[in-house]
Amino acid sequence: MIKAGIIGATGYAGGELVRLLTAHPDVEIVWYGSRSYIDKKYYEVYKNMFQIVDAVCLDDNMEELAKQADVIFTATPQGFCASLINEEILSNAKLVDLSADFRIKDVATYEKWYGIGHKAPQYIGEAVYGLCEINREAVKNARLVANPGCYPTCSTLSIYPLLKEGLIDPSTVIIDAKSGTSGAGRGAKVDNLYCEVNENIKAYGVANHRHTPEIEEQLSLAAGEEMLINFTPHLVPMNRGILITAYASLKSTLQPDGTRAFPSYEEVRAAYDKYYDKEKFVRVLDKNVCPETKWVEGSNYVDVNFKIDERTGRVIMMGAMDNLVKGAAGQAVQNMNLMFGLPETKGLELVPMFP
Amino acid sequence: MIKAGIIGATGYAGGELVRLLTAHPDVEIVWYGSRSYIDKKYYEVYKNMFQIVDAVCLDDNMEELAKQADVIFTATPQGFCASLINEEILSNAKLVDLSADFRIKDVATYEKWYGIGHKAPQYIGEAVYGLCEINREAVKNARLVANPGCYPTCSTLSIYPLLKEGLIDPSTVIIDAKSGTSGAGRGAKVDNLYCEVNENIKAYGVANHRHTPEIEEQLSLAAGEEMLINFTPHLVPMNRGILITAYASLKSTLQPDGTRAFPSYEEVRAAYDKYYDKEKFVRVLDKNVCPETKWVEGSNYVDVNFKIDERTGRVIMMGAMDNLVKGAAGQAVQNMNLMFGLPETKGLELVPMFP
Amino acid sequence: MIKAGIIGATGYAGGELVRLLTAHPDVEIVWYGSRSYIDKKYYEVYKNMFQIVDAVCLDDNMEELAKQADVIFTATPQGFCASLINEEILSNAKLVDLSADFRIKDVATYEKWYGIGHKAPQYIGEAVYGLCEINREAVKNARLVANPGCYPTCSTLSIYPLLKEGLIDPSTVIIDAKSGTSGAGRGAKVDNLYCEVNENIKAYGVANHRHTPEIEEQLSLAAGEEMLINFTPHLVPMNRGILITAYASLKSTLQPDGTRAFPSYEEVRAAYDKYYDKEKFVRVLDKNVCPETKWVEGSNYVDVNFKIDERTGRVIMMGAMDNLVKGAAGQAVQNMNLMFGLPETKGLELVPMFP
Amino acid sequence: MIKAGIIGATGYAGGELVRLLTAHPDVEIVWYGSRSYIDKKYYEVYKNMFQIVDAVCLDDNMEELAKQADVIFTATPQGFCASLINEEILSNAKLVDLSADFRIKDVATYEKWYGIGHKAPQYIGEAVYGLCEINREAVKNARLVANPGCYPTCSTLSIYPLLKEGLIDPSTVIIDAKSGTSGAGRGAKVDNLYCEVNENIKAYGVANHRHTPEIEEQLSLAAGEEMLINFTPHLVPMNRGILITAYASLKSTLQPDGTRAFPSYEEVRAAYDKYYDKEKFVRVLDKNVCPETKWVEGSNYVDVNFKIDERTGRVIMMGAMDNLVKGAAGQAVQNMNLMFGLPETKGLELVPMFP
Repeated sequence: MIKAGIIGATGYAGGELVRLLTAHPDVEIVWYGSRSYIDKKYYEVYKNMFQIVDAVCLDDNMEELAKQADVIFTATPQGFCASLINEEILSNAKLVDLSADFRIKDVATYEKWYGIGHKAPQYIGEAVYGLCEINREAVKNARLVANPGCYPTCSTLSIYPLLKEGLIDPSTVIIDAKSGTSGAGRGAKVDNLYCEVNENIKAYGVANHRHTPEIEEQLSLAAGEEMLINFTPHLVPMNRGILITAYASLKSTLQPDGTRAFPSYEEVRAAYDKYYDKEKFVRVLDKNVCPETKWVEGSNYVDVNFKIDERTGRVIMMGAMDNLVKGAAGQAVQNMNLMFGLPETKGLELVPMFP
Repeated sequence: MIKAGIIGATGYAGGELVRLLTAHPDVEIVWYGSRSYIDKKYYEVYKNMFQIVDAVCLDDNMEELAKQADVIFTATPQGFCASLINEEILSNAKLVDLSADFRIKDVATYEKWYGIGHKAPQYIGEAVYGLCEINREAVKNARLVANPGCYPTCSTLSIYPLLKEGLIDPSTVIIDAKSGTSGAGRGAKVDNLYCEVNENIKAYGVANHRHTPEIEEQLSLAAGEEMLINFTPHLVPMNRGILITAYASLKSTLQPDGTRAFPSYEEVRAAYDKYYDKEKFVRVLDKNVCPETKWVEGSNYVDVNFKIDERTGRVIMMGAMDNLVKGAAGQAVQNMNLMFGLPETKGLELVPMFP
Repeated sequence: MIKAGIIGATGYAGGELVRLLTAHPDVEIVWYGSRSYIDKKYYEVYKNMFQIVDAVCLDDNMEELAKQADVIFTATPQGFCASLINEEILSNAKLVDLSADFRIKDVATYEKWYGIGHKAPQYIGEAVYGLCEINREAVKNARLVANPGCYPTCSTLSIYPLLKEGLIDPSTVIIDAKSGTSGAGRGAKVDNLYCEVNENIKAYGVANHRHTPEIEEQLSLAAGEEMLINFTPHLVPMNRGILITAYASLKSTLQPDGTRAFPSYEEVRAAYDKYYDKEKFVRVLDKNVCPETKWVEGSNYVDVNFKIDERTGRVIMMGAMDNLVKGAAGQAVQNMNLMFGLPETKGLELVPMFP
Repeated sequence: MIKAGIIGATGYAGGELVRLLTAHPDVEIVWYGSRSYIDKKYYEVYKNMFQIVDAVCLDDNMEELAKQADVIFTATPQGFCASLINEEILSNAKLVDLSADFRIKDVATYEKWYGIGHKAPQYIGEAVYGLCEINREAVKNARLVANPGCYPTCSTLSIYPLLKEGLIDPSTVIIDAKSGTSGAGRGAKVDNLYCEVNENIKAYGVANHRHTPEIEEQLSLAAGEEMLINFTPHLVPMNRGILITAYASLKSTLQPDGTRAFPSYEEVRAAYDKYYDKEKFVRVLDKNVCPETKWVEGSNYVDVNFKIDERTGRVIMMGAMDNLVKGAAGQAVQNMNLMFGLPETKGLELVPMFP
């Protein structure tokens, strides 16, 4: 049994980790860390866990935790993991950080977008960006994994094959994202009250959302060149789910007759199939079927698809996933599975719940 | 592997059966029956099942199905199962009927409340009412199980111990029930459109809902006397979940000083514990904690609790469950497990999803 | 023009008052009181009011406000109004208090249920309980009106005629209430976050909700005897709306043949018609039509109806209204209209919004 | 009093027309046309209108209706109005068509996107596109107004000033739209059931939605050149509201130092102010405030704003409105006001409802 400890177990991502790890056949949770609820029964904070988890919440002493656990998950605010990490911890336990601390390779970029100094830049180089479908081999050997952000996971997987295969113009990528409200966390803020979110939709963080540089870094790696994108997230009145609608101009080729030709449906489809055919958790939908967040709810799937608009020469790329599973806790477990040599799908064979 | 066939696999209860049985380690689904979608891929009807189920929908030929399957689930409208059932089918396969056809022992009562003639009254006596917590032993030996209705399951389990222990006056029971919209089924009706249900709550079937005689039969068995109740269901703007709020007068005892005394919290609590202490799927909550549907979503749990109002001498009994799991498909699987000698919780160790 | 001042203008009830008074042809708002947002533009707090209200929020100096206004609305927490009220204020302006401070005639009852001492018991006797349909004449002459609570308004109007006409047994009244989330206010609490309320229903305040004694007082007045009731409120995932489902035993009369007869549909209907036939804001629905909160949304209507269950001898009484309008701000305006000799419906001819 | 007749009074847009016209001081509804509910009381179809509208539904005899009414509103499926319109009708009554029949000037474009032949092309030239803020003068003199589509209204108003002022490159416009479910109408379809829409978001009509050519025609007129756009609508789990998020590249100017400069915030803002400063129903929000659908719910407002992303040289334009008011019935009333010489805001001074 792998012994797991969670720092930040009482946030929504932490709660989802508990849900998944509790059902994972090879894992035992030994530490429910929660600064706000120390000494309180975990099931009093998340009453769905009544008679399932009997433990009390502990503090965030990561050094002590590292001695007891084989793997640590940090589901904490920005800067927290970087402020605690050290060599002793990493020598005792593997670490999957669900915050942004180790996702961005350039320290200056991190500090600019997050507005805080980085406390442990020496570990950025070592950290593996845990988007399993792309960095699988590196994750297997990592002791520190930066679990990708929710928007970056869905955005990158939706666009990656077309950039990698050079089918779209990297300078034209626009990502319009929609997220359920659990992405805003469990903090008590007026903006997240039921009455403020229900029957409402809005954009937020327009042109300055912190996930922008993370997405740009991953897409740039795929494109083989520096990319800047537009990224606009929206808050949707639902608990779970992220939907990505991305736009880009297809590269065209000059035809003998002087016209320009765009890639066909089959060519674009082949790009998706090339990268995802053997991926358990990425489902490329049938032609003309649009992803919907409800079809992946509660599961680790990302559903992707695309539509070519020949009138404008653009391709619309779409992706849907559960922000708390593939966008947070599920991907963290997927990373853990890889790090410990387990089958990648262990504990993640979740059938989406509908309705 | 138990071979299972489902008649009515494309309704919401049928879809939930597919979700649960797909993940059940000892079951293989061999028949996805759906009159409306014959020859269509099942995943085209429920796109969450893409790359999970590849079968096409078949017709409702129960005789043929019985030859191929060990167990048949009928998730069909009232009267359908009774019109098809016969000795040959029952000699080939066990049958769990999710409709009301075999739940009520008195044919006249069934015919009066459902407004149709009963086509197979000869099997009513044999059928076991599949409320596992109460009829466990009978279910084990049954070849025909009447899977309880959603409201009756939650109502009965919430009230049963107090009737059984004689703590409340059977003539005073009032049940005010609230259900998510999946209980109304997947039929295309204006009343169930998003815009009609959202931001709205209403009572329906007041004083004439068909689950009334089923609840009355079960409660009467518990009380040891004929009971009539008030049962008022309400439609709530949410997908899943049933909440029961039930009221009854506590029986009082005359004290030496001439006053009347009501049972204490401890006495009532002891009644719940007596019947549910060892029940995996019934959770008696801590004192003063009210059941909420969200805490059991996606799981087979029923959360129950109560509050004594000494001012009025009444007890308020509450219960929450997922109407599609414990109220339909989950309980059907629980019955199947019992009928086939499997551990009762097999395939049902579902951790509730929150949020 | 009537000059109106609002203390607590930035809560949900206060915001609704602003919405209604802004559109009222005879009213000008001169004071937007809000302790939390002093000096902030009101439209920055409620952005729906952009380009409609340009004023800034002021403090809660009720003495100063009374000098400038003809009427003061206090939409503030319990105890606040009682702590500020004095003779000078009442000599300068009429006062409609939306809190519970002056609703309950018995100080001890108020102090017991609200857990605070009453700071101005000398005004309780003078205060008129502003349920216009019942206390219309008294309201007209009042300088201090206690605006009824949301649950008490809907409960009382749903049950009143049957108690008044002696058709039901007062000792058997049970009220099961359901409310949208705006009733919980705009305070930043985890319990009221979107993800906690959405897809969830629960009872709260079981057997101890503060509206209980207020309802009991009003119903007792109608019945002409002291009554105790059961009152159980529930939180429903919707913004607005209250639905009341109330139960009581019909009084029966001994027939010559020894059986007991219950009042007929027509007799009960006649009771409702007697009190509400000329009421603009109470709509007695057609036979067998159940009230739904969506049909009254945004309006000052209360829709009521009933169903007799002859099997149990009980009547189920139902009522639906918008908790922020007839349950708070709309009724406050209705009271103001009466107090100032305006047509009672002025500014309240709101057509319910659907969907 | 203006006598108004409505064909299609029982759809959601028709129902909203009834809500608005009922409260309009200068209008009397004389005809509630509804093919599906002929001879039924209107309030039985929309129970919010109980005791407000007592009329029965009539058929769709537009010739007869034209004799009785001063203005006809057709809130009917595509092709219906064009199949009935004739000179006699237009000589008797003014006509506001809420369908798409007369919105698009090019018949071939209409027939291609809508897949039906146009039955009355002779009236296309005469019809005025009723986007009041842009075509006010023409509307005043029209006898036939094509009421704009919901998406086109919000899209055009959000983008118009920047195209008109030449601030953006017309070839780069991408519109990502989000709509509440009332936009899908009241037809009984599985896709629009509560359980299918709730907790879900999806794109639909990708690259082929019928509002595309309508938007393109209006934007082309503003730009002074033929434009092709990408338009992607999404279905959001809420009743009302449309949010537009539009993207375009800002035109840059070559600086003396060889770099390129983009328009400043002030320059873009001035463009919005130039066109909307005096518009009652278009609110240009304060800097950095994003439009939200909830802030305009129930009202005729469109809230617009923008954000410049200097990193990518694009501007993000946003707009929010109530799809049933400014996107349908409200705009139709606004057009009627203009056509009859009434103040444009008559009957439309609706304060948005929050929450």
